[in-house]
Amino acid sequence: MKLLEDRIRRDGKIKAGGILKVDSFLNHQMDIGLFEQMADEFYRLFEGCGVTKILTIEASGIGIACITAQKFNCPVIFAKKTKTKNIDGAVYTAQVESFTHGRVYDIIVSKEFLKAGDRVLIIDDFLANGAALSGLVQIVKDAGATAVGAGIAIEKTFQPGGERLRASGLRIESLARIKSMSDDGAIEFC
Amino acid sequence: MKLLEDRIRRDGKIKAGGILKVDSFLNHQMDIGLFEQMADEFYRLFEGCGVTKILTIEASGIGIACITAQKFNCPVIFAKKTKTKNIDGAVYTAQVESFTHGRVYDIIVSKEFLKAGDRVLIIDDFLANGAALSGLVQIVKDAGATAVGAGIAIEKTFQPGGERLRASGLRIESLARIKSMSDDGAIEFC
Repeated sequence: MKLLEDRIRRDGKIKAGGILKVDSFLNHQMDIGLFEQMADEFYRLFEGCGVTKILTIEASGIGIACITAQKFNCPVIFAKKTKTKNIDGAVYTAQVESFTHGRVYDIIVSKEFLKAGDRVLIIDDFLANGAALSGLVQIVKDAGATAVGAGIAIEKTFQPGGERLRASGLRIESLARIKSMSDDGAIEFC
Repeated sequence: MKLLEDRIRRDGKIKAGGILKVDSFLNHQMDIGLFEQMADEFYRLFEGCGVTKILTIEASGIGIACITAQKFNCPVIFAKKTKTKNIDGAVYTAQVESFTHGRVYDIIVSKEFLKAGDRVLIIDDFLANGAALSGLVQIVKDAGATAVGAGIAIEKTFQPGGERLRASGLRIESLARIKSMSDDGAIEFC
C-alpha cells in the first residue's frame, strides 16, 4: 500500500537494533484518516471471507482493528496481556515471547466471545518474529473457530514470523513489507 | 445516554467489590456500532470546543477514542502505562494509582505529540476514583495545552473521582452515570 509506505519513509525513524519507530502515526499518536484507508484495503482483501469477528491484541492493534471492524460490521475482541489471569471464568490462553521486551507473557481471550463457527480476521500493527500472531492463531484454533487470515500494517520480512506462519497455512496480508532497513534511515520495501 | 444505560442493564455483570463487568461490549469485546453512537454523543457535547487532539490511555480507552476521533477529524494519542520509561526522548509523565490492581504505575506521553496550543478532549471508558483521569489532566497541563473536557463512557458517581475533578474545574461528560449497584444485579442511574 503505497500510502503507508510513503508515510513510513517520511515519518518513520530507524533506531538501533532494527527498531522502526512509527509512533507519530501508528502506535502512540494515531492518524485515524490513515487508519480508514488501511481499513478500506483490509476490507478489499478479506471482503469475501465471511468475517464474524476481528481479533487483535492490546494495545497498539486496537485502533486499527476498531476502524477495520466498521467496514466488516462486526465486533472486535482484543486479547489481554497479563501475568495474572484476571478475567474470571474460562479463558483461552497462549504464551507469547516478546523479543522487544525480553520476556514471556500470557495473552487471554474470554471463551464467551470466541466460538466454534466464528470466522476471525486477526489485525495487528506489526509482524516481525510472529510471536504475538502465533499466540492469536492458537487461541482461534483452541476456540474451534477459523482464522480467515491476518491483516498486518507493517511486516519486517527480514524477520522470520511471516514466512513461518504462511508456511503453516495462514493467509497474511501486510500493507507495507519492509525488506531491509539501514541505520542511515534507508528503508527498502518488497 | 439511554442506549448505553440499557446496554449496561442488559449485558453488564456486577461482581463482588463494586466491579461492573462490561467486557461483552466495551472493554474486551467491543461493539463498534455502539461506539459510533457514543462518538456521535461526544461530538454533540464537545463540538464547539475546537478539539485538536484526543487523549486516552491504554488499553480499553483506545477503541472509543479512535471512533470518536473520526467525528472530530483529529489524531488520537494514547498514554502508555509503563514501569520503564521505554519511549526514548522526552516524555510527559504522571503517576497513577490503580485501585483495581492495587499498584502505582507511570503513564507517559511523548512530548512530540502534545503541544502548547493543543485543545485536548480526554476520552476513557470508566471514571471511578479518577486516578487515570487526573494523570491525563496533569500531562495536558504539563504540555501547556488545554483540556477542553473529558468524555467518559461509564461513571460511578458513588466513587469520588468525578466530584473531585469537576470541583477542580474540569468539564466531565459521562454517557452513563451509575448512582448505585447492588450485588443482586440492580443498577440505579443518576
